[in-house]
Amino acid sequence: MRVAVFGTGTVGETLGRKLIEVGHDVMMGSRSASNEKALAWVKKAGSKASAGTFSDAAKYGQLIVNATLGTATIEVFKAAGADNTAGKPVIDISNPLDFSKGFPPSLFVSNTDSLAEQLQREFPKAHIVKALNTMTAAIMVNPRALSESHHTWICGADAGAKETVRGVLQSFGWKSEEIIDCGDLSASRAIESLLPMWLRLYGALKTPMFNLKIVK
Amino acid sequence: MRVAVFGTGTVGETLGRKLIEVGHDVMMGSRSASNEKALAWVKKAGSKASAGTFSDAAKYGQLIVNATLGTATIEVFKAAGADNTAGKPVIDISNPLDFSKGFPPSLFVSNTDSLAEQLQREFPKAHIVKALNTMTAAIMVNPRALSESHHTWICGADAGAKETVRGVLQSFGWKSEEIIDCGDLSASRAIESLLPMWLRLYGALKTPMFNLKIVK
Repeated sequence: MRVAVFGTGTVGETLGRKLIEVGHDVMMGSRSASNEKALAWVKKAGSKASAGTFSDAAKYGQLIVNATLGTATIEVFKAAGADNTAGKPVIDISNPLDFSKGFPPSLFVSNTDSLAEQLQREFPKAHIVKALNTMTAAIMVNPRALSESHHTWICGADAGAKETVRGVLQSFGWKSEEIIDCGDLSASRAIESLLPMWLRLYGALKTPMFNLKIVK
Repeated sequence: MRVAVFGTGTVGETLGRKLIEVGHDVMMGSRSASNEKALAWVKKAGSKASAGTFSDAAKYGQLIVNATLGTATIEVFKAAGADNTAGKPVIDISNPLDFSKGFPPSLFVSNTDSLAEQLQREFPKAHIVKALNTMTAAIMVNPRALSESHHTWICGADAGAKETVRGVLQSFGWKSEEIIDCGDLSASRAIESLLPMWLRLYGALKTPMFNLKIVK
């Protein structure tokens, strides 16, 4: 697949690298086609990597990975263009973190709404699937880095898009039974609300290398 | 210890029974000393069980367990009386669930505040410790009912109260390393925000008999 990765931070770089490793072609999107971080990533990532504007990347991608800051997400998708994301699955890893009042951050949307739903309302033709936003990037792409099995959650309205995302996660090493489908996109309210706990646990455990497992 | 349990629902009954089983004397508090559910519970629970008003129970208890509905919690503590809860550890199991718009419920306080903090502000001399609110009652008192080790979280301002609560949890079967101290009471914002995810997982897993484990 041709994949667009929005965002040049650690999450975007890590996901981009892994997507290439498992066989995809990746264009990293950013505000400018000459973004230095994107070009440096392309140089490292090799011949299957490229860089462009958000609009370039959205046009190119058959799948879109949103690895931008939550505060930037809606604007990034506006820059990408509604027509360029229409009909495409979007793996939405963003979190609505508000650092404006310091640490720990609060959420700028929560409880009765979510960032994923805001994005879906703005771009009704994109197939938003919330996924992977509740762990550090190194675990997203290498779940086997932890000592035992653990879980991740997806949600979204479009069954086909969820299947695509499930396939991508499995190609990263997630086992089918480790991927819990929490239903429609309103489950993003619950999934995004895990972030404050993730941050507290990060504080208590002194490492980001952990994830949650459901024990029955 | 003499323990006051506020609340006659499943959580209150289950905790009350377990507290007696591990050696404590328990008074179940409710609005009226002749509450039928409380009296029925006393009959079943035996000679170490008693019932009274919230005020009776608060006076009696050296430890208070808040197993009331989140919507009732502040009013219950007002009925119990600030003087009767002053200086005492409070295990706060309540959740700020708002069912007024149907299922799944939203939270009536979240993100930048929590029910535990509201309670602490109203009753500054009580030692509120958030604990056990993120699982079904049967697991609270019998963590070994699940197939493997899993985790629970506590937070609060008073170190002594947290130690008391930790001791109670260990008497229920929680191992020391399964009890994660998330810091001061503001961590309740994160812990209470797990409830929406608990409800989604309950929907996905079709059983309440699960809990979360941190995998490193």
